[in-house]
Amino acid sequence: MAPFSLHAQIEADSMLLRDLPLCQLRLQNQSAVPWLILVPRRETTEIYQLSAEDRAQLMEEIALISRLVSEVFKPDKINVAALGNVVPQLHIHVVGRFKNDPAWPKPIWGNVPQQPYTDAARAQVIERINNSSM
Amino acid sequence: MAPFSLHAQIEADSMLLRDLPLCQLRLQNQSAVPWLILVPRRETTEIYQLSAEDRAQLMEEIALISRLVSEVFKPDKINVAALGNVVPQLHIHVVGRFKNDPAWPKPIWGNVPQQPYTDAARAQVIERINNSSM
Repeated sequence: MAPFSLHAQIEADSMLLRDLPLCQLRLQNQSAVPWLILVPRRETTEIYQLSAEDRAQLMEEIALISRLVSEVFKPDKINVAALGNVVPQLHIHVVGRFKNDPAWPKPIWGNVPQQPYTDAARAQVIERINNSSM
Repeated sequence: MAPFSLHAQIEADSMLLRDLPLCQLRLQNQSAVPWLILVPRRETTEIYQLSAEDRAQLMEEIALISRLVSEVFKPDKINVAALGNVVPQLHIHVVGRFKNDPAWPKPIWGNVPQQPYTDAARAQVIERINNSSM
């Protein structure tokens, strides 16, 4: 398997928060909703192409981050998705959705205008994440 | 935990193909793309609320069905998603996407007109699924 190299589009659209055992945990630069991204450090495009061990680890990291988003941001619903129609490198969106967010109840992708974080707002969100029980 | 009862909207929009160890495997009544749905037989709304054992099983059923869709329909990409903004009961979409499908590269939800199967087309899709190596 080729060494892992982060896709330029993911790098441009999000920032690294920390490395989990399998995935990079990244914050999407979209302040409208709490939007985290898990990028397995593997060169693959589909979940089923991961090894069984990696799949099990991925599920646990999805659960961990979903719980974190739920506890920190108290959304009405968590959306978890591996799409990759635009950026094929495997990455999993974990997004906290609110009944009053600008896209509700539609999927978030393509349905919210670009609202990048200010430095202050990003710092605050990262602090809330880092202060969580995770 | 309350006994499992399928949400009426999921029942109306899809048909049961078979029971896997954890999930109902269902075919969405949308002929534009191969669209399967996994519904864990648990009364819950979020993946992280499942037990660790159920999460591991769910991941394996997601991988199994993703591989099936890939092998049978040869899509350009698999989309896997647990959204639930409209129907909160936990269900996971596994959708084969094609570069020439009517929504590509956008998410499928809300971006394709309703195209229910004819009886003949549905029978053919089910036969292809049943004849797969799964």
